[in-house]
Amino acid sequence: MVLGALEAGGTKMVCCIGEADGTIHERATFDTGRPETTVPLLIRYFHDRKIDALGIGSFGPVDLHRDSPTYGYITRTPKEGWRDFPLSPLLRDALDVPTAIETDVNIAAIGEVTYGAAKGYSNIVYVTVGTGIGGGALIDGKPLHGLVHPEMGHLILHPMPDDPDPEGVCPYHKGCLEGLASGPAIENRWGLPAAQLPEDHKAWDLEVEYLSQMCANMVYVLSPECIVLGGGVMHQLHLFPRIRQRTLDLLGGYIRNNRLLEAPESYLVPPGLGDDSGVVGALILAHALL
Amino acid sequence: MVLGALEAGGTKMVCCIGEADGTIHERATFDTGRPETTVPLLIRYFHDRKIDALGIGSFGPVDLHRDSPTYGYITRTPKEGWRDFPLSPLLRDALDVPTAIETDVNIAAIGEVTYGAAKGYSNIVYVTVGTGIGGGALIDGKPLHGLVHPEMGHLILHPMPDDPDPEGVCPYHKGCLEGLASGPAIENRWGLPAAQLPEDHKAWDLEVEYLSQMCANMVYVLSPECIVLGGGVMHQLHLFPRIRQRTLDLLGGYIRNNRLLEAPESYLVPPGLGDDSGVVGALILAHALL
Repeated sequence: MVLGALEAGGTKMVCCIGEADGTIHERATFDTGRPETTVPLLIRYFHDRKIDALGIGSFGPVDLHRDSPTYGYITRTPKEGWRDFPLSPLLRDALDVPTAIETDVNIAAIGEVTYGAAKGYSNIVYVTVGTGIGGGALIDGKPLHGLVHPEMGHLILHPMPDDPDPEGVCPYHKGCLEGLASGPAIENRWGLPAAQLPEDHKAWDLEVEYLSQMCANMVYVLSPECIVLGGGVMHQLHLFPRIRQRTLDLLGGYIRNNRLLEAPESYLVPPGLGDDSGVVGALILAHALL
Repeated sequence: MVLGALEAGGTKMVCCIGEADGTIHERATFDTGRPETTVPLLIRYFHDRKIDALGIGSFGPVDLHRDSPTYGYITRTPKEGWRDFPLSPLLRDALDVPTAIETDVNIAAIGEVTYGAAKGYSNIVYVTVGTGIGGGALIDGKPLHGLVHPEMGHLILHPMPDDPDPEGVCPYHKGCLEGLASGPAIENRWGLPAAQLPEDHKAWDLEVEYLSQMCANMVYVLSPECIVLGGGVMHQLHLFPRIRQRTLDLLGGYIRNNRLLEAPESYLVPPGLGDDSGVVGALILAHALL
């Protein structure tokens, strides 16, 4: 059986062929242009490789309700051409194979819980911190959907008094997580991309504060067994010990759990699959269709 | 079959006899003293009525992991005498009937989703705003537990610049939801109990703001199909239209769901069972044991 995985992002499309055990045999990346130019490239890639099933993790919002007439559509995105686009059913029909779709962060959570840093847990949160901030959750092993699906990137936080840009860069909200702590928020605040800031730059003090507030709020609301923080900004591994310490400070001893209190290095973790959490999750999703 | 329900609170114990359809035949209330004085009263009440099963909703933290040796214990509470107290197994053994336990807010969510304001939904949040603030959630109809269980009352919010008490009254945290918006927070800030403040008092502006921040954060993290707000402070029904409007303002049009946007009066609701959500949930829990 040949499994296909598509990680559909706002800037690029990652296509992979691989196995249900997470092995990736080959991959290709295409820029995300308008659907009429980009989608034919995806179809040709997977068609040529004669896949038997396709798992998709997509930027959102996505309609994940299986009984909905627009199941598998990207819905109200502002992204040119992609609004109300039937991504999953279109690929299913064009390739004549079963397809399954999840949000990009929910499939990353599936990858991490199956073969990554959260292996063995069934209640986890996966948050990606990069151009945007997004979060997905598994509850008892199943992706959390609910009314739509979580949009954790827009959590309301407590902006710090010493923040030179306490309103942040989100066009929708003042002082939300993505507006305060995404890559563009860092660059807008300090005039340099995150990757060019030294480890002792005060930018990281604010970044630690906001990501720790987010982690504490996840503990309060979802009570996960593990929080995985991925995405480009989290390549800054020096942030992890500081986020663990500050999250415990913010919780103030209120949540009495030995693992959280005594082994936070196993609780707040970088992805075990690096930047492949999503495509591995999509392979697992594809396998489940067969 | 005779079903017993116990709502174990920090200040009082509510005992009921009733039916799985939510009918309550009789009830008694006892002050919550030390366990050695209070628990014998509970045992005698249920023993005299020859119950066949007992459902318990308890103040927390509670060990809800069925495979744990301390399943059904109240664990690290600061409440005198109740720390590491085996509430559910002790009542099971003393009464010789099956018992089941949940947090007080999770059973209230079960009551509301079965016979109350959230009937028909399977993903809901129930928040009680009173002496403390607590929240429970059902995901796909099941109570959310995770690592411990949610402690939504301590969510980090954005304190308002015009708040005379922006650090709030929580002994564990500065600026958390319970510290900013519980009954004691209102009384500490304005010098009068919530029930004595007129509807046009500016106290309610801040209360609306903080509860709306909480609701927006619930939408972002849990994406519930319905949010039920109960407890003493929410007896102020004039708050509901204002919280609905402010929550939508805070969401800023980002979550595109017709019900949320066009019928928020069915999304953010008072409990359909009034103050009986918890005991009705406990009767349902008891019935499931038989």
